[in-house]
Amino acid sequence: MAKKKLSEQKIAELKELGRICRGDILKMTTVAKSGHPGGSMSSIDIYLMLYAYANIDPENPFDPNRDRVVISHGHTSPGVYAALGRLGFFNIDEVIAGFRHAGSIYEGHITRGIPGVEWTTGNLGQGLSAGVGMALASKISGKNFQVYVAMGDAEQAKGQVAEARRTAVKYGLNNLVAVIDYNDAQISGRAHDVMFVDIKANYEADGWKVIEVDGHDYEALNDALCEASNYSEGPVVIIAKTVMGKGVSFMEDVVGYHGKPLDLEACKKALAELGVENDLEKYLEMRKKLPSYHEPIVPPTEFVEIDPGTPITYGASEKLDNRSAFGKALADLAKINKGKAPIAVVDCDLKPSTKLEDFEKVWPENFVQIGVQEHNAVTVAGAMSISGAKTFFADFGVFGIDETYNQQRLNDINKTDLKVGVTHVGIDVGEDGKTHHCLDYIGAIKNLYGFKLIVPADPNQTDRAVRYAAVNKGNFIIAMGRSKMDIITDANGKPFFGDDYKFEYGKVDVIREGKDATVVVTGQVTTEAVKAADELKAEGIEITILNVSCPLDANFEEVKEYLKGKVCSFEDHNVNSGLGTLLESYFALAGFLPEKFEKIGIDRYFISGSKKDLYKIAGLDAESIAERVRKWVR
Amino acid sequence: MAKKKLSEQKIAELKELGRICRGDILKMTTVAKSGHPGGSMSSIDIYLMLYAYANIDPENPFDPNRDRVVISHGHTSPGVYAALGRLGFFNIDEVIAGFRHAGSIYEGHITRGIPGVEWTTGNLGQGLSAGVGMALASKISGKNFQVYVAMGDAEQAKGQVAEARRTAVKYGLNNLVAVIDYNDAQISGRAHDVMFVDIKANYEADGWKVIEVDGHDYEALNDALCEASNYSEGPVVIIAKTVMGKGVSFMEDVVGYHGKPLDLEACKKALAELGVENDLEKYLEMRKKLPSYHEPIVPPTEFVEIDPGTPITYGASEKLDNRSAFGKALADLAKINKGKAPIAVVDCDLKPSTKLEDFEKVWPENFVQIGVQEHNAVTVAGAMSISGAKTFFADFGVFGIDETYNQQRLNDINKTDLKVGVTHVGIDVGEDGKTHHCLDYIGAIKNLYGFKLIVPADPNQTDRAVRYAAVNKGNFIIAMGRSKMDIITDANGKPFFGDDYKFEYGKVDVIREGKDATVVVTGQVTTEAVKAADELKAEGIEITILNVSCPLDANFEEVKEYLKGKVCSFEDHNVNSGLGTLLESYFALAGFLPEKFEKIGIDRYFISGSKKDLYKIAGLDAESIAERVRKWVR
Repeated sequence: MAKKKLSEQKIAELKELGRICRGDILKMTTVAKSGHPGGSMSSIDIYLMLYAYANIDPENPFDPNRDRVVISHGHTSPGVYAALGRLGFFNIDEVIAGFRHAGSIYEGHITRGIPGVEWTTGNLGQGLSAGVGMALASKISGKNFQVYVAMGDAEQAKGQVAEARRTAVKYGLNNLVAVIDYNDAQISGRAHDVMFVDIKANYEADGWKVIEVDGHDYEALNDALCEASNYSEGPVVIIAKTVMGKGVSFMEDVVGYHGKPLDLEACKKALAELGVENDLEKYLEMRKKLPSYHEPIVPPTEFVEIDPGTPITYGASEKLDNRSAFGKALADLAKINKGKAPIAVVDCDLKPSTKLEDFEKVWPENFVQIGVQEHNAVTVAGAMSISGAKTFFADFGVFGIDETYNQQRLNDINKTDLKVGVTHVGIDVGEDGKTHHCLDYIGAIKNLYGFKLIVPADPNQTDRAVRYAAVNKGNFIIAMGRSKMDIITDANGKPFFGDDYKFEYGKVDVIREGKDATVVVTGQVTTEAVKAADELKAEGIEITILNVSCPLDANFEEVKEYLKGKVCSFEDHNVNSGLGTLLESYFALAGFLPEKFEKIGIDRYFISGSKKDLYKIAGLDAESIAERVRKWVR
Repeated sequence: MAKKKLSEQKIAELKELGRICRGDILKMTTVAKSGHPGGSMSSIDIYLMLYAYANIDPENPFDPNRDRVVISHGHTSPGVYAALGRLGFFNIDEVIAGFRHAGSIYEGHITRGIPGVEWTTGNLGQGLSAGVGMALASKISGKNFQVYVAMGDAEQAKGQVAEARRTAVKYGLNNLVAVIDYNDAQISGRAHDVMFVDIKANYEADGWKVIEVDGHDYEALNDALCEASNYSEGPVVIIAKTVMGKGVSFMEDVVGYHGKPLDLEACKKALAELGVENDLEKYLEMRKKLPSYHEPIVPPTEFVEIDPGTPITYGASEKLDNRSAFGKALADLAKINKGKAPIAVVDCDLKPSTKLEDFEKVWPENFVQIGVQEHNAVTVAGAMSISGAKTFFADFGVFGIDETYNQQRLNDINKTDLKVGVTHVGIDVGEDGKTHHCLDYIGAIKNLYGFKLIVPADPNQTDRAVRYAAVNKGNFIIAMGRSKMDIITDANGKPFFGDDYKFEYGKVDVIREGKDATVVVTGQVTTEAVKAADELKAEGIEITILNVSCPLDANFEEVKEYLKGKVCSFEDHNVNSGLGTLLESYFALAGFLPEKFEKIGIDRYFISGSKKDLYKIAGLDAESIAERVRKWVR
């Protein structure tokens, strides 16, 4: 359906709002004594045009079929809030009085959940990836909404923008329109001096259609948005030439106003020049009456319900790696849900290793291959997950956690619904060596408040963890090693995580019980500990094995009695920041120390070698575990 | 000085080595049953030409004036090792027998410290940034060596490569030549299918000169390297069209050989085709006799000695932020060392906030402005730091730690000598809100084995920390808040970290002593605790204040006696992963728990607001600290 131009009357209204919004921007930053007026004033005409042009109803701003507008340069929040307020999304007075105050939801950088705001930004260079994710989800979910992304010029230098550009072209995202506010001014000076980017040449080199306009000319923006929105071949970028501080003579093109508000006197002068009433006193009074705190906004995300299917149980005699169980579970979800509920997976050129190939075979249309562009891939996947597609992302641990740590943090802040599978964690990776050993899958994720972390012990627990994450809200990381392992069995030789087992988030599994010592383990080390326990039992030494599949939220209280004697943790993880340290925190909280406690893990960037050799060196193989316990118990 | 072409005779020798090296590549991967033969065989002719063309003496491979060759696609280690071995850098037999074995230094991905290897890679897309850093250091140090960077084609999609490209052009790096092995094959298939990158158009859009050649044609490579090395206008890229698996008929252009070695039978067949002797048995025997472990290599880095100058003491009545003290210390180092020892600083468009402007004013030639390109900036700075320039990098915490977490990890693995100042850590950032609150400056860095972390309590301690890091080897992070604070004084009202104070890494500072309770603090919270202590004293409550300026290596043992009673930690950091957890680990190690212990910190992504309001909400301001202690002690 062809998108039409806005009417002349509408354009006239918006022009008038442009003048009023400029006043709002100045008022809110002056009242807050903080914020970014300069870029807000260069972007304001673009924002008014975008929010008016896009199909978003201020009365129903979270309609799943709405067009999405992503603002990448989130520090222009005064401009975004002014435009949205004046277009009827919320009360503008509350913004002007409350901007950046602890008692107001109108924070320093735009926040998802505020009507009209689709993505929390502020860290630059992320918005185009979010837009690509939404545009992909639009196609995958069949909703076919349009996505608009506004960006600043300084952030065009950021590599992630180039990654997003290529992804948009690869997937022919003709429902994606980007607008760049090219005011040529950033914190350190002129954008073209600080780090020159030939923006037009860059977009063209990556295959985008480019339109250039005056970013303060409403008619020109109207024409450009109409042309871009109807262009069917792929994504379009509108490079809008603007002036920082536009509209107030003494602010125009002055780089210093990037992040500096006007004082009261200057603000009055500027308001007079704009022909806007000086009602600053009113807002200063309102601000004094604000509460001292506001609850964080919870955005109303549509949660995609899927059928988790029936768990697969791998028999006691099978030998398998967790990542294969992950791949098979995903393929199973694909088979069950295809044609019913949209599931998508995102890969970064590692599908044979992360086992996403299994999914791809079943549902190739929903397999998104982003190549060696991890930063972009993680943001794309996060945005997809809240835009109508149940989204899985898989990568090696060093890429899906370390390389994209901040992108995952921003997903978390955005309260996405992303399911991440990281494979090749630990020195279990073996020969690929230290650059590929992810040793912080607990220690890094511990810093992210929202992510749930599951480190399954074997393929059976992996299968159940995948299905659990698939049907429970929020961000999950499932961390898996590389190597094949024995299926963990109970004392009778039956699969421990078999048909009768139900995954419960946070539960600590008591795999073996014994009075002589307690070994606490997680992930691929559990199978080694079980072997050690069975070996020790033959010698008359009986140990308890606690498997901690959810380290960050482990319910140690429930297994407290096992933790009072001789306790040792073994982990294929940095010993300074992993399982052992979580136990130490628990002890302090619970108010007791075990009779004896030791934590074994990786204490340095490790060498390259076979898993077998490395586990021996690190003291994590069954033999080393048994030997340590023997020394203790004797 | 014009660089010359290699002689015809030398070219003939190299061609013959190309055949032999192909045999070496196949032998080492087959013997190891692991590794990447395909890309190694497409890159081998390039490697031989690069190492022969560059001014590097195998007899003196760490000469500070040597040309640098960086290999970005580090998984082609078999090719790199074969070329270096056959060119006389080390014994090729040891590589073939030991490749990827725990008892050998020839690890899975190339490792800095092996003669000829300048940068440990494996995570793709980092090498060009490292090369840019080295080329910048070459100019800043006046050594004027040439830098060559070899890359794969798949990694051209990575955004960091685009960032590096622009930096090279901005700084006119005519001493930088890149060579791309364009074999159009990667793990998931053809590079142009997985994620199409128009490599030529991309480099040209960013202002590079492009030369295209056949990457298996030695004469053409010779011509291209000569032309590129003598080009004076800026950086040059040579796009070398190659064939994966080149040289063995059944391997050529077969994507599957990217990461799959030949089995013994296939290897014999391939060796026969190459006309290389089948001596696999010899190497298999040698491998059996390898030790089970090797010590990690320590690369012989030249350490730039600078004069640390005399500490600045800020008086008891001054009010200052730590970042201003950081900026002033850097400017002071610049004044003292200019013209004597090269110091450089790297900025990402935040100089007014990170206070790098002070340095820039003194030493503009050594001020490197990389713009909004953090990933590249961190790698550039790391590489500079081991290439002849004492290098400082500064950024907001969320960028210098979170966004670039993996780049810092790779710097750490590379044993760089980088001094990082991160500002705006904690909710002390205030109004910029959650995307800008860095709450993991302890919790993230705890995962990096080599980095030393200093979180100074006030401007005086900051000044001393900067000078300490400047003259001590290795990677340092100095984490600072945003706000101005009171200078910390001793009980007599004199600056605590004044003229008599000497910074000692790891030492815990006893700022106040009192019997009623112990408050443990770090960074910008210390000044709040001191205020609380002085307030409480007036009420007859005496508390001890322990300032932990080096959380990761704090010597708690020395202040053990203070930790046995009522202890509470207060931190402007994620409470799950910061100072409090380090205390908990210490308790478990030391074998005691305090009479009472509580940890106060940030337990969620925080809202935006003034520092004052936020500290009150979080319970970190002087009043809240005092109130908590009162409740305890009463």
